[in-house]
Amino acid sequence: MNWDQVGDQICSVARTMSILGDRWTMLVVREAFAGTTLFDEFVAYTGATPQVISERLKRLVEAGIFETRAKDKGRGSEYVMTEMGRDLHPIISTIIVFGDKWLSDGKGPPQVTRHVGCGCVTAPRLACSECSEFVSPANLTREPSPAMQRYRARMLTAASK
Amino acid sequence: MNWDQVGDQICSVARTMSILGDRWTMLVVREAFAGTTLFDEFVAYTGATPQVISERLKRLVEAGIFETRAKDKGRGSEYVMTEMGRDLHPIISTIIVFGDKWLSDGKGPPQVTRHVGCGCVTAPRLACSECSEFVSPANLTREPSPAMQRYRARMLTAASK
Repeated sequence: MNWDQVGDQICSVARTMSILGDRWTMLVVREAFAGTTLFDEFVAYTGATPQVISERLKRLVEAGIFETRAKDKGRGSEYVMTEMGRDLHPIISTIIVFGDKWLSDGKGPPQVTRHVGCGCVTAPRLACSECSEFVSPANLTREPSPAMQRYRARMLTAASK
Repeated sequence: MNWDQVGDQICSVARTMSILGDRWTMLVVREAFAGTTLFDEFVAYTGATPQVISERLKRLVEAGIFETRAKDKGRGSEYVMTEMGRDLHPIISTIIVFGDKWLSDGKGPPQVTRHVGCGCVTAPRLACSECSEFVSPANLTREPSPAMQRYRARMLTAASK
């Protein structure tokens, strides 16, 4: 199985990683959240070659993560995140929290995140969208969706005929 | 710059992605959270070749994400997530939430996540670790850590001498 087929797996991890599953791509997304919009800046801040950045930006535009916007007076174009792109924020945030905790080499992270609301330095955690309680693997379960249940019921009915 | 060097960037995204930044690796981690521990099961459930899974599991053990545990009666070994590995849960969860929302192809996701605490189907969101409020890019800022501030102050003092 190659990655084009993996994107077709009925799995949200596989589908998301068929867009994001490249290390340079995640650095491009990190830079976009830091405010970078220009091609040359993506190259400078990620340390990747222009060829690598060009290919990654092209794929991210095709995937709907970025849109291009013309700059004033023919000075090239900007890469701006779409609503879909901005929805990558929780993924980047949880990657930062993990890296800060486990991979900061004993020196601590170079940057901290502050929550403007309460003023504290924060390491954002996952909370239930419905009741706001913090969640963990211990209090989450995965189950077939209603669509999948209907599909299975149809298959069962067909098989018993 | 190659990826060995990127892992050395003072950036938690770069460091984390130098471990996770491979699409098959994320599918291995997804399977581990679903309870998979055996080599053959990782192969079967991800759709990757045995060679790919063998290489990914080896790297994840080296990185401290998995540890191996001997099974009863010489039946090979199990790959079990360490505390560090279990801390990948928020990353996988936010990837699932993103994929469910943006990449489910109009059919909806095959599985849903339920929060045992409140009983609701949930799409976990990020909340401040200190005050529990939901957070977004609009109410988070990034700033140099105390360690980085001290480093900069030393550089400034040295430069002004």
